[in-house]
Amino acid sequence: DDLGRLVVRCPDRPGIVHLLSGLLTELGANITDSQQHSSDPSGGTFTLRLEFVLAGLASRRAELEARLAAVAGEWELTWRLTEAAHRPTVAVFVSRADHVLQELIYRVRAGDLRADIVAVLSNHPDLAPVAAAAGIPFHHVPVTPATKADAEARALELIGDVDLVVLARYMQIVSADFCSRFPERLINIHHSFLPAFVGANPYQAAHDRGVKLIGATAHYVTPELDAGPIIEQEVARVDHRATVEDMRRVGRYVERQVLAQAVTWHVEDRVIVEGPRTIVFA
Amino acid sequence: DDLGRLVVRCPDRPGIVHLLSGLLTELGANITDSQQHSSDPSGGTFTLRLEFVLAGLASRRAELEARLAAVAGEWELTWRLTEAAHRPTVAVFVSRADHVLQELIYRVRAGDLRADIVAVLSNHPDLAPVAAAAGIPFHHVPVTPATKADAEARALELIGDVDLVVLARYMQIVSADFCSRFPERLINIHHSFLPAFVGANPYQAAHDRGVKLIGATAHYVTPELDAGPIIEQEVARVDHRATVEDMRRVGRYVERQVLAQAVTWHVEDRVIVEGPRTIVFA
Amino acid sequence: DDLGRLVVRCPDRPGIVHLLSGLLTELGANITDSQQHSSDPSGGTFTLRLEFVLAGLASRRAELEARLAAVAGEWELTWRLTEAAHRPTVAVFVSRADHVLQELIYRVRAGDLRADIVAVLSNHPDLAPVAAAAGIPFHHVPVTPATKADAEARALELIGDVDLVVLARYMQIVSADFCSRFPERLINIHHSFLPAFVGANPYQAAHDRGVKLIGATAHYVTPELDAGPIIEQEVARVDHRATVEDMRRVGRYVERQVLAQAVTWHVEDRVIVEGPRTIVFA
Amino acid sequence: DDLGRLVVRCPDRPGIVHLLSGLLTELGANITDSQQHSSDPSGGTFTLRLEFVLAGLASRRAELEARLAAVAGEWELTWRLTEAAHRPTVAVFVSRADHVLQELIYRVRAGDLRADIVAVLSNHPDLAPVAAAAGIPFHHVPVTPATKADAEARALELIGDVDLVVLARYMQIVSADFCSRFPERLINIHHSFLPAFVGANPYQAAHDRGVKLIGATAHYVTPELDAGPIIEQEVARVDHRATVEDMRRVGRYVERQVLAQAVTWHVEDRVIVEGPRTIVFA
Repeated sequence: DDLGRLVVRCPDRPGIVHLLSGLLTELGANITDSQQHSSDPSGGTFTLRLEFVLAGLASRRAELEARLAAVAGEWELTWRLTEAAHRPTVAVFVSRADHVLQELIYRVRAGDLRADIVAVLSNHPDLAPVAAAAGIPFHHVPVTPATKADAEARALELIGDVDLVVLARYMQIVSADFCSRFPERLINIHHSFLPAFVGANPYQAAHDRGVKLIGATAHYVTPELDAGPIIEQEVARVDHRATVEDMRRVGRYVERQVLAQAVTWHVEDRVIVEGPRTIVFA
Repeated sequence: DDLGRLVVRCPDRPGIVHLLSGLLTELGANITDSQQHSSDPSGGTFTLRLEFVLAGLASRRAELEARLAAVAGEWELTWRLTEAAHRPTVAVFVSRADHVLQELIYRVRAGDLRADIVAVLSNHPDLAPVAAAAGIPFHHVPVTPATKADAEARALELIGDVDLVVLARYMQIVSADFCSRFPERLINIHHSFLPAFVGANPYQAAHDRGVKLIGATAHYVTPELDAGPIIEQEVARVDHRATVEDMRRVGRYVERQVLAQAVTWHVEDRVIVEGPRTIVFA
Repeated sequence: DDLGRLVVRCPDRPGIVHLLSGLLTELGANITDSQQHSSDPSGGTFTLRLEFVLAGLASRRAELEARLAAVAGEWELTWRLTEAAHRPTVAVFVSRADHVLQELIYRVRAGDLRADIVAVLSNHPDLAPVAAAAGIPFHHVPVTPATKADAEARALELIGDVDLVVLARYMQIVSADFCSRFPERLINIHHSFLPAFVGANPYQAAHDRGVKLIGATAHYVTPELDAGPIIEQEVARVDHRATVEDMRRVGRYVERQVLAQAVTWHVEDRVIVEGPRTIVFA
Repeated sequence: DDLGRLVVRCPDRPGIVHLLSGLLTELGANITDSQQHSSDPSGGTFTLRLEFVLAGLASRRAELEARLAAVAGEWELTWRLTEAAHRPTVAVFVSRADHVLQELIYRVRAGDLRADIVAVLSNHPDLAPVAAAAGIPFHHVPVTPATKADAEARALELIGDVDLVVLARYMQIVSADFCSRFPERLINIHHSFLPAFVGANPYQAAHDRGVKLIGATAHYVTPELDAGPIIEQEVARVDHRATVEDMRRVGRYVERQVLAQAVTWHVEDRVIVEGPRTIVFA
């Protein structure tokens, strides 16, 4: 319960590690993991992720934040401080395919994904039983081109104030407005190795092109289709015998792995968006 | 010396395996490997690759071809018959980077690639020593936009009548006319996971997009840039720390592996072009 | 419903492909897939796996078998003929860990594993709810050293006449007698890259040795512990940060993938045991 | 030229990162990379690897070392300080196979392996031309059981005071005495996935066991055969068609990759031996 995570970003200059390690040490924290990245050795942005143990973390959080605030101006710091005991809430959007949802449910239960799926929302009713079996509220919100804005508004009401929204093979394009509600908190799985095969029907396109590897990409969603910062990608080998349907079948196992990995890293504060890219402290 | 390879293609219909296995058996051949593919179980194209041992193959080749010719009309067969003892001749085109050329030379020497590199041709003089060390004639043929047609004509003269041309990081786009001289016998390595990052500077583009895997693609060259049938692809993992230069360095090892594999399969008659795709009997 | 699979083994000699393709062609079957292997080009065993479509397969099965029987003596053939429409029955043995069982249940439901899990049997009661949720009978058969023989006898009664038994992280060693009841029909997942780390606690042993990859192995069970013919293996990368518990967690995903793949190949008649090894026509 | 690397080890306790970052910051160094590991959060050993830029590093090295020495007693520090501009010297021991040696030579030339191969030593004369082509002195030191001690003494004389000895498919077991001359500075490539197939002829053993993946392992050499701390491992897939010779051929490409990677990490001070394991700050 005393495990904390601190992600700090600031302009890169000498002494920042010393400053932050000193700040935590003075409080009596023990740094158990530290990873850092400089976007550019000269004049770039410095990112530091610390895991630390601080006795009585919950009650001393304000003190730690006050100390960070005291130096934030001079060092131009921004930070994110998380208590590992806090389990983020997640809403999962699906359509008809269940494989990614099943995987997320499995990993939460297995203790490998430390988050709570608080809602499953779909534009189809098919997966209601999957949610029910896992004891998760299911919301059926049909979408047509004409009702899209209303549907999104309804979805927002239903899922409420969640920490993360995951599009787990949700076959609808969400609006720019919807994206803006979940900045860097909206993750999609695209069933291709982006930027190859943006848009609909990527397995058909992959088959037509005759690729020898198929892939999947988990990324943060931004208004531009399939163009947001990539969190994780993986591929699987196929050969000339693979039909489009075979690619879909093989791809399902890649998709579930890639999305589950991306969500796990996200909820552990391991993913930091840096412009069009991500830093992943895996 | 008696090992032969026969690749046959025809419209798919019952009895074709029986026909061809019978034809070889009657001659006294022993089929040691057989792989087949149907592009479509109903009404597609059937492709069969056989390896067989036939005592006195070289002297009996005409007889085997006569038997194939006798049934070719009725069954609409096309075929390619190769004596494994024949070593194909290869011309390798390079620019300044040597890693793929070195790998091809190594694999020929190691006996893993059964072909003879008979010429190295480059638009730069840099790799002359590499060719010299391997005892391979080196041709320096500079290319400018104005002299491109002449340069290609000169290249054709210099390499003569080779079985295969390999573009081993040759940083020039070859003309449609040049392509047409080597149908399904001109292989390029593109330093991305096609169809992502077609064209120049794919590692820069991959870095800009923030991909988590970089790739390489070996393909037959057709007039449309980077769009020919793919023979082999592979990827390597990179993370947020990788600069463009790091990606180039990692990519070199993927490129050499992918191209060497593709060329090896090609010279063993394992690759069959089928429209925009390839069948690879690996 | 008319899809059949024929696996034939015999001493290798010229003409066998011709014989079998002729036999099927005469019946009017269309061979849609063919894979073959010679254990040794001179004097070894030849193995052929054919997929074919034969109208009215179920009713013509006897005819096909009669034709095979007619040549079996002369050619020393053994064969296995399967109607793809037949779904094999599977009993899954587990202890407390659910990840492999869950995966098998998922793949059956998804249609990727064409078999019916007809019983889950465990030496612990923990996974009864998992079986119940999937509508599969669950049998709790405790085992102690003293009751092992009785427990196995009870297990045999409970599972009845199944086509395949899968040990899905069943933490008991089965007896030689039990093995003999399911020759080449008893598959185990061992949580290491065999033959490294035979026996108990392989993740602890892997950690102690400081390996950089952990693995899993699916194999047919024989009386000698962890020594049966290997069907499939896979590995995952770990680094110095991985504790034994981390290895167990990562390993779970490798184990479920490897066992599910092995079982899928088995039920599709793609695995043929050849002495201490397997042929896998993947 | 001003890039330095500092690897520090000490008992784990709060404040150590603060201490070391402060020490470097006060000198005016800029920490460009930092990786750390705790063998055990409570009471284990802490390992820190820093890359830093310090203007005039070579001339200020003594000052930095003095500061480290001043705190070494209190904090029980041990450290290794390297100037990146220093290129370690390497002696490569081979027998008849050239693939790993060729790869090391290639990577040095390509600038991917920042070291100087100053000697190639072999118990066979075969690879003298490879060394000669690369401009590296070649020493032929035959070994028989009777002459082993003398041969090792002669080898030590010939290679002199090198930073690293690499056994690049050197088919002799070196003595405990030889090992003791190069503690954590003697790297071997074993052609199996250790601890599977310790000792001679691992590909034959792998074939006999019917494995589906073959591997290679780079490790520090200790007196116990094939039991030293593992630096890197990799595998490649094989199937039932692979003969022992095929495994050897496939394995060569795995071996060269694994050993070259291990040596590269070693010369960049990324590998730290911790008991029977290694920490690799890749």
